[in-house]
Parts: sequence; structure tokens; C-alpha cells
Amino acid sequence: MNAVTSIHPGELVRLPARRGVAIRLKQGQTIKLVNTHGKQVVDTWAFNPQDLCETMSMEHSRPFWLKLNPCKGDSLVTNKRRKILTLTEDTTPGVHDTLVAACDPTRYVQLGVVGHHDSCKENLFRALDAVGLVTPETPSPLNLFMNVPVHPDGRIEFAVPVSEPGQYVCLKAEMDAIVVFSACPQDITAVNGMRPQDVHYCII
Amino acid sequence: MNAVTSIHPGELVRLPARRGVAIRLKQGQTIKLVNTHGKQVVDTWAFNPQDLCETMSMEHSRPFWLKLNPCKGDSLVTNKRRKILTLTEDTTPGVHDTLVAACDPTRYVQLGVVGHHDSCKENLFRALDAVGLVTPETPSPLNLFMNVPVHPDGRIEFAVPVSEPGQYVCLKAEMDAIVVFSACPQDITAVNGMRPQDVHYCII
Repeated sequence: MNAVTSIHPGELVRLPARRGVAIRLKQGQTIKLVNTHGKQVVDTWAFNPQDLCETMSMEHSRPFWLKLNPCKGDSLVTNKRRKILTLTEDTTPGVHDTLVAACDPTRYVQLGVVGHHDSCKENLFRALDAVGLVTPETPSPLNLFMNVPVHPDGRIEFAVPVSEPGQYVCLKAEMDAIVVFSACPQDITAVNGMRPQDVHYCII
Repeated sequence: MNAVTSIHPGELVRLPARRGVAIRLKQGQTIKLVNTHGKQVVDTWAFNPQDLCETMSMEHSRPFWLKLNPCKGDSLVTNKRRKILTLTEDTTPGVHDTLVAACDPTRYVQLGVVGHHDSCKENLFRALDAVGLVTPETPSPLNLFMNVPVHPDGRIEFAVPVSEPGQYVCLKAEMDAIVVFSACPQDITAVNGMRPQDVHYCII
């Protein structure tokens, strides 16, 4: 049931395009997430394993940073204002997103898709289910590598990521945490360069 | 139990400084919120009365608008991407906030407050309790009149509201809704001009 027991420190694991995974981190462990092909967005959540209602929160992290997005050295906080992850490395140009909800089945219906389309929300629920957990909600994710420019008049747009193949981020657990990654299956807008791809991760 | 049954259409009701209120709106009804003294922030939530897990969502509304903040004519959507409120009037300069979580007891501890301090999160829970409801979470609020400038480098700050005495917004219910207002009790940062004040509202 636990998707993580087979991961050895340093082992590079593939997260297939359009799929999600939940990973248990102990306080002090660091996970490295590699944008293998360069333009893949990864929706990222973190939960307190003792209380899944305590979740990494973008609306609490922004006033903590006094910025829209985290940079190397910044910690992400929960909805109880406790540090849960720290961005300890970032070899990308540092363009990520904290403004936009995870894609979900309704999003694709509204974009004109007929029939089923994979989504980050479903990936979150399936990934947690694979480790025997259920979340009552879908917190607003940290959208790693996602490029949502904010214009001076407040307009935002969905643009192609500026990260390049092999660039990566490292997230250190400041408390025991369940981290969920979803390799975003969005292929209707430009957020993944129109082509969802695999990414890789390892615990270091 | 229902805090709203005594409100007649057109009757201007005082929301005391530092307090909250929950108001039941039927689809098509409009509520007018007056910034009586001009510099008071009002944290605002909206819930589907049939399912309190369906809530007005800032992270779903921003991609719906492709903007950080709503302007006159924009609808706010829920976490199911359904319209719940529309901003039908706004006589302020249009400066509101969708980025920052509600203040809560932990926020005041972290700001150095010793002992109890009123908070918007507690106001939300008390206001819902007064109409016999419980929410499992605290959604990220629409912070009406709140001035959080976003700088070109992504920095944000807490600034004094730019609204003036008597300016108002009107919110039309696009579905039956429970709307909660909290006259923000923040008096440690500048968000209410350092002095929490009464506001007034009426159903029109």
C-alpha cells in the first residue's frame, strides 16, 4: 500500500507523465525533483501525516514570504503557519506559481474536452489512496516550474515554463510530511509546453 | 439561531468593528457592503448552503478571471468552478486582495501579541455557529478593500486601504449562498489604517 517503502535514498524514480505519487518524508529528509524534459509542471502538496487537515498553504506562505513565489532558502508554511518544506535548491530561473488551483475534471469540461481527461486533482486523490490516506479537500498547490506571468495591471496568463531539461528543485522536510507530486496532464493550454512529460525524483 | 431573519431588504445593518456575521442569500439577491469609515478591510467568504465544502475559491477565481483581483462585472467561482457571487457594483478604486489568508490566533502570536486577539478566522467560525453551521476549513477569503500591492519583482506588502468613507461594493448571489463578512480586527499592521472600524451592509 505504501508507495514509498521501495525507494532507497539516492535512487532516481520516474514519475510518469500525467500521473501522481505520494511520498512520506521524515523531518530533515530532502526530496529532489528533476524536470527531466524541462517544460513539465508539477503540482505539489504537503500534508502533516498526523493530521491531513494541516496542509501546505499558498495563502499562508505568501504573507510569510511577503512575495508571490518562493526562492531558494524560503520555507513553505501550513495553514497552521508552521514550516513544512524549505526550497533548499533551485537550479531553474525560479519561475513557479502559487496562484492557480489544480486542474480537475470540471476544468477540462470548461475547456471543451469531451470524455475523461486526467487531472492533478484526481492524481492527488489517487496518490494518497495508494498510501492509504484520504484528504477532505484539495489545497491550492505549489505549482513547481509553472509560468504564470503577472502583468503590472494585475492580469495573469498561462505561459510555457522557462525551466530547461535536467533543472531541479530540492525540498527539505521541516516536519514529517506526506508530499504529493502530480506531473500535470494539462495539454489544452501552454502550461506544459502542450506536451506532458515524465519527471524524476529522489530522496537525498 | 439564524442571524439574518430579522434583516429586511434595504435595512442598513451595522457590523461592529472586529466582529463577523453570516448572511443567507437566495439566488438573485444582492448584498451591499459599505465601508462606512473608509479604511476597514472585510474578509469575505461564500458557501453553498447545501454543501459547506463547496466554497468561494480565490485559486479557482483567479484563472477564471485571468487577473489577480475582481473588477465590477466579474463573478467569483467556487472550488467546483461554479459562479457564486458577482461583483455588480464597486464605487471604490477597485483595490481588493485575493492573496492573503485570514488572520488567526497564530498570526497574532507571531506578530508578538500576548494574550487573546480577535481574528477573522474566529469570526468566521462564530458567525457560522450563530446560524447553526460548521465549516471544516477556512477557505482563503476575498479581502474586500484590502490593499496588498504587488511589485514587479513579486514582492507584496500590507498597505492602508485606498477606499474612502461611504464607498461600497455590491455582491449578487448567483446561487443560494451563505456569505460571511468579518470586519478585520488587525491593528498590528496597516491593513485597516491601524484602527478597526464598523462597516454596514444591507440586502437590496
